[in-house]
Amino acid sequence: MIWRIPLVSPPCERSRAKALERQARLTKPPGSLGQLESLAVRLAALQGTGRPQAERFWISVFAADHGIAGEGVSAFPQAVTRAMVRNFVRGGAAISVLARQLGAPLEVVDVGILDPVDEPAVISARAGRGTANFAQCPAMTESQLEICLNAGRTSIERARAAGTQIFIGGEMGIGNTTAASALACALLDVSPEAMAGPGTGLDSAGIRRKREVIARALELHAVSLSQPRDCLRCLGGFEIAALAAAYLYAAAERLPVLLDGFIAGVAALAAVRLQPACRDYLIFSHRSGEPGHRLILEALEAAPLLDLSLRLGEGSGAAAAAPLLRAACALHNEMATFAEAGVPTA
Amino acid sequence: MIWRIPLVSPPCERSRAKALERQARLTKPPGSLGQLESLAVRLAALQGTGRPQAERFWISVFAADHGIAGEGVSAFPQAVTRAMVRNFVRGGAAISVLARQLGAPLEVVDVGILDPVDEPAVISARAGRGTANFAQCPAMTESQLEICLNAGRTSIERARAAGTQIFIGGEMGIGNTTAASALACALLDVSPEAMAGPGTGLDSAGIRRKREVIARALELHAVSLSQPRDCLRCLGGFEIAALAAAYLYAAAERLPVLLDGFIAGVAALAAVRLQPACRDYLIFSHRSGEPGHRLILEALEAAPLLDLSLRLGEGSGAAAAAPLLRAACALHNEMATFAEAGVPTA
Repeated sequence: MIWRIPLVSPPCERSRAKALERQARLTKPPGSLGQLESLAVRLAALQGTGRPQAERFWISVFAADHGIAGEGVSAFPQAVTRAMVRNFVRGGAAISVLARQLGAPLEVVDVGILDPVDEPAVISARAGRGTANFAQCPAMTESQLEICLNAGRTSIERARAAGTQIFIGGEMGIGNTTAASALACALLDVSPEAMAGPGTGLDSAGIRRKREVIARALELHAVSLSQPRDCLRCLGGFEIAALAAAYLYAAAERLPVLLDGFIAGVAALAAVRLQPACRDYLIFSHRSGEPGHRLILEALEAAPLLDLSLRLGEGSGAAAAAPLLRAACALHNEMATFAEAGVPTA
Repeated sequence: MIWRIPLVSPPCERSRAKALERQARLTKPPGSLGQLESLAVRLAALQGTGRPQAERFWISVFAADHGIAGEGVSAFPQAVTRAMVRNFVRGGAAISVLARQLGAPLEVVDVGILDPVDEPAVISARAGRGTANFAQCPAMTESQLEICLNAGRTSIERARAAGTQIFIGGEMGIGNTTAASALACALLDVSPEAMAGPGTGLDSAGIRRKREVIARALELHAVSLSQPRDCLRCLGGFEIAALAAAYLYAAAERLPVLLDGFIAGVAALAAVRLQPACRDYLIFSHRSGEPGHRLILEALEAAPLLDLSLRLGEGSGAAAAAPLLRAACALHNEMATFAEAGVPTA
């Protein structure tokens, strides 16, 4: 299956207008529900309906390992990736708990952790035993990249088949803030000093090492980094590529995405560079505690819903913000109008 | 029943330590769940348990009318208060929708709207037909104040009897941002220019008039405003006094309060001035779109969870933030530890 950048339709302006008109008639001072109003109106335009819905969320977590972890750029050993994949499907991870709270299906996709886990619930779409060390050579081959992109696409197909109304993508992979930071440096043409931070908890010596590794990689791949697809191939992780593809296909399917934090944000940036029309479908859940996220949000002109210093990944920030979308839709659909309730207007 | 300021116990430091110790063992980088971690730990200390709970919320909305509305300080006619009380119990208001979403009981307490509604679901604890115009005389008498304070207290008794884990108080009353602004000016010794804003949607001429009315009232009552209780009596609304008492009694009952926006915040400020120990029990849900809220939050050294330009009142901002408390508790109680999940540590 050859992977092509999908076409993405613009939001439906007629549905937006219908939703705006309804908001003006609900029993509240105009604008008094702030971003909960604009969220409902935006979801209406994205879903192409005057009555937007955010009951059925779907969560896909993509997991992979990273050759760059060999450079000592993470506070955690690489074996954590595999152990956490098991923790996801056994219900003990943060995203497992939040998915249960939401009543949302959680699928875990192995796009290339070091050694596969013996857990039937994990979906296998492996592109290899982790990426190559991108400080030495491209992180992946073109055919590995294709496997990851198709993995993201098929997750959206499953989500759509289940009647999903909002998609959440998460990631796990020791070393992946380094890959994401390098990719963001390439896509935004900023320095590793501006982008790379502590990740899961590096000390200042660790952050310095991480920045040096990224600087070296950017120099090594410099001639290859003019196209976003090559940036993904040279610097990305398998799970980052899968996320980028999932966001693109969600947008192509008119399925709004509730975006997580730093790594998801970099994957979204890659997706937007591949297909600018997908930006409309991205709803930013939170501002991460990872400092580089600020630059990603600025580049995407995004105003996130939450700012709670979350920096776990897994899709956890998006899942934490999901009830706000539910509240926005319930208010929009269930509140009485001034006429219905017999309330005098201003 | 004579109303006395209740005693409030400090949070339980042993439960806080237990909760902190558990957080450190959960399968995530330390601190990576940001404010969701600190919320869980704080709730543990307030509820006096290592395993905090935020499933059973209780919402009391206090409604009253305001003599000050006669000065033309609201964008809406006074009849809206009564119509909205009906809308609350019939399920069409924002807080009605959000209460349903949370599965939380919503009680509506009439502490003195102009004319009572013929709705059996509304609890009657009327202190009068609205307050007096506080630009001309004290808003209420001492015995009216007692009725309101007792109304807040009995709401907490009902909430406690129902096994409530988190209390939310809301308000409705055309003119009540004027009363709340005047009260906040008195409690914080700031000018009406710094405190009073558009409320439900005043234009700039309306805001100017509102500020003049408040300035006049502050001058009229100047000699009476040294004690917080007298500030409430001279400038407060019936629903603001009831809210202040509810917050005090919630704290006395070790029942954490999820606080709404501007008017609830001024009621909380009055409660803290009456009994400083109740501050610990107040969790600030959001930063209101009403500009004066900033000064209230600063005075109470509060960092709210949400900043979504909400300015509706009714308890709606608190109800919108409630799922964050649920998520914080679920993560705290249900996530696996590193040992349980066999995940290597940093």
